[in-house]
Amino acid sequence: MPLMKSWVASANDANHPFPLNNLPYGVFSTAGTEERCGVAIGDMILDMAAAEEAGLVTMSEIPVFDVPYWNDLMDMGSEAWAALRARLTGLLAEGSAEQSAVEPLLVPMADATLHMPFAVSEYTDFYAGRQHAANMGAILRGSPDLPANWLHIPIGYNGRASSVVVSGTPIHRPNGQRKAPDAEMPSFGPSMRLDIELEMGAIVGTPSEFGQPITVDQADDMIFGYVLLNDWSARDIQGWEYQPLGPFQGKAFGTSISPWIVTAAALEEFRAPTPDREKELLPYLDSTKDGLFDIDLEVLMQPEGAETASVVAKTNYNRMYYSAAEQLCHHAIGGCGMNVGDLLGSGTISGPNKGEYGSLMEVSWAGREPFTLDTGETRSFIEDGDTLTLRGNARGDGFTIGFGDCTGKILPAVAWPAK
Amino acid sequence: MPLMKSWVASANDANHPFPLNNLPYGVFSTAGTEERCGVAIGDMILDMAAAEEAGLVTMSEIPVFDVPYWNDLMDMGSEAWAALRARLTGLLAEGSAEQSAVEPLLVPMADATLHMPFAVSEYTDFYAGRQHAANMGAILRGSPDLPANWLHIPIGYNGRASSVVVSGTPIHRPNGQRKAPDAEMPSFGPSMRLDIELEMGAIVGTPSEFGQPITVDQADDMIFGYVLLNDWSARDIQGWEYQPLGPFQGKAFGTSISPWIVTAAALEEFRAPTPDREKELLPYLDSTKDGLFDIDLEVLMQPEGAETASVVAKTNYNRMYYSAAEQLCHHAIGGCGMNVGDLLGSGTISGPNKGEYGSLMEVSWAGREPFTLDTGETRSFIEDGDTLTLRGNARGDGFTIGFGDCTGKILPAVAWPAK
Repeated sequence: MPLMKSWVASANDANHPFPLNNLPYGVFSTAGTEERCGVAIGDMILDMAAAEEAGLVTMSEIPVFDVPYWNDLMDMGSEAWAALRARLTGLLAEGSAEQSAVEPLLVPMADATLHMPFAVSEYTDFYAGRQHAANMGAILRGSPDLPANWLHIPIGYNGRASSVVVSGTPIHRPNGQRKAPDAEMPSFGPSMRLDIELEMGAIVGTPSEFGQPITVDQADDMIFGYVLLNDWSARDIQGWEYQPLGPFQGKAFGTSISPWIVTAAALEEFRAPTPDREKELLPYLDSTKDGLFDIDLEVLMQPEGAETASVVAKTNYNRMYYSAAEQLCHHAIGGCGMNVGDLLGSGTISGPNKGEYGSLMEVSWAGREPFTLDTGETRSFIEDGDTLTLRGNARGDGFTIGFGDCTGKILPAVAWPAK
Repeated sequence: MPLMKSWVASANDANHPFPLNNLPYGVFSTAGTEERCGVAIGDMILDMAAAEEAGLVTMSEIPVFDVPYWNDLMDMGSEAWAALRARLTGLLAEGSAEQSAVEPLLVPMADATLHMPFAVSEYTDFYAGRQHAANMGAILRGSPDLPANWLHIPIGYNGRASSVVVSGTPIHRPNGQRKAPDAEMPSFGPSMRLDIELEMGAIVGTPSEFGQPITVDQADDMIFGYVLLNDWSARDIQGWEYQPLGPFQGKAFGTSISPWIVTAAALEEFRAPTPDREKELLPYLDSTKDGLFDIDLEVLMQPEGAETASVVAKTNYNRMYYSAAEQLCHHAIGGCGMNVGDLLGSGTISGPNKGEYGSLMEVSWAGREPFTLDTGETRSFIEDGDTLTLRGNARGDGFTIGFGDCTGKILPAVAWPAK
């Protein structure tokens, strides 16, 4: 599909992240106004609460957009999702008869503050990047061999929904327990190995029933949209705590997501296959659709006071071994009920080549190979004041589907115990 | 404190689980009525929505009891919790001037259906029983040695809130991946090692701030109350999936809780110390109060068609190594925000003696020592149609603080893939 032209001129630039082909969903406020739903179009945000109030968009008798989350719309089901997308496309397309009614409801993005676009019900994080799993094995256990279950199960663990924050929220370096390999006892204090994980997040828009499994194709239909996701990780805390029950406090202090939900509908034409299976998957993981998406991804790092950010990694979401739909199917296979607003992190996305590694643990090979930023400074892990940014773009025929930056600055650890 | 006498006669029996000293909080309905808050007193339930409507209990201008959860009351803070308890004690005490006004608002428990007493925000499960950890090590790894971190960290993992159901909810045996040690490939199908875990659940009633740690004493004050908790576990699924990120589908198909929230206030006089520390804890885990409670616990098993249930284990919550307050403090220490309605499972409670083991994995020593029920049948794990029940009682001076049974029946696995 080529660029769909909008009467919002800025949306028609081939490199702009928010053309009419995209129409991502966010929550915004302006000075002195309440948080409400909005749709990005070029440099503007369509105020959905105002559009609903004006009768331009009517989804239900009860307002669904004058709230600080898109969960109510998700809850209406996939036919409503399609109807809304069609209606918005009509309102914002070049030649729309309703341009004069809609134009006053556009808010310059520059005047807006963006908030969490949805209420996270539960958050699950996966481990579905083959190169990342091999790298971590090589770094931590001296062998790139995968765990025995890895080629059979989309391995995941439950994360902490209360840790999920919108891009721009600063994150305190966490305190916690860590133990050096040669130390006799653990100590308590700020993490000294603070890291990121470059991930995509899939948002469940259709629930499943408690006690009932789903297929991969059903799971694919249940996904409302995607965000960029930075699974901030304290490697020293994680390394000491994770046996035998998995990551806990090493992952609980912050998980940043990009502010715009890019809908599954907008990504449809960027579908990409999962790679050839090294071991045949069990039949419950069969599917009929390509479950990955061709989305270029970047990690950038900017020290305090630096004028520009340095690119630390570039890769693509199509590097993953398991798709979000496969992960969601596996998540529900034993009868676990999935709910509107559940967030599934893909796992760290690392391509096969150096330069494609989605965590600093891999980029600096656990600190054995520090890397150099454009400023000349070197890094192994994150230092206080550093800002980390994830960026994602799907490149179409004369247009770009962008996600908006997923960014976060690291603040010093809280002094603790308080004196 | 001795038995506090109520004008509800059934509440004055020394063995009744719901005397005036208890006043646990639940959610109930009767035929043709909506779910609403209620308080157990003897064989009756005080209809809190009706009491609020009648002006007998006023917590806020907005009704807080005509809803199917106690979260709104929790949200009002600990002074409100104390005020409500004092008011209810006054209304229901022998000699109350308001007996005639309250009496019509009592509903026989026999006529009521009990529902989830609160909305679970997030669910975390711990691993804080020393004997259980040693038993599992001996069974699974051939050695009772604890993991290196175990005596330093209250080890926990994030569970799945959507799996939490109220006592009485039947649970389907889960399907999932499992692999026999000598099999080359995993297979898919119903769990063949279905188990329980006897636990207590602590409910967070006061939130903590994202990015900010808390002390153990603060954590203790944040706990609103306790329930019995059965962390149903599929040992074969768990065994194959849990490396390296911990339990996932092996624990996601159901977690049963008892229907009444026994408040921290009601348990205050049953406080018990944690055992002597084998290794000194880091100072952030210091506290000034005894964090455990002297609560007798039982596990019962009843096969389909059997007339009575057999006692499978008897132990006490004071057998734990870590308290719920220590667990909650550790949970927030890196800045993880804790919210009203968060549920913390204690971890399996097993005492040092055989007969005190809180999981069938331990009782049957992984199936190597099947046990015999009163019916003469033997078991290693749970069979379809079996009903498992947890029971808890704190024994006071002439009264009992009970929780109400935490029960669940296992139904056959769902046929999958659907033909």
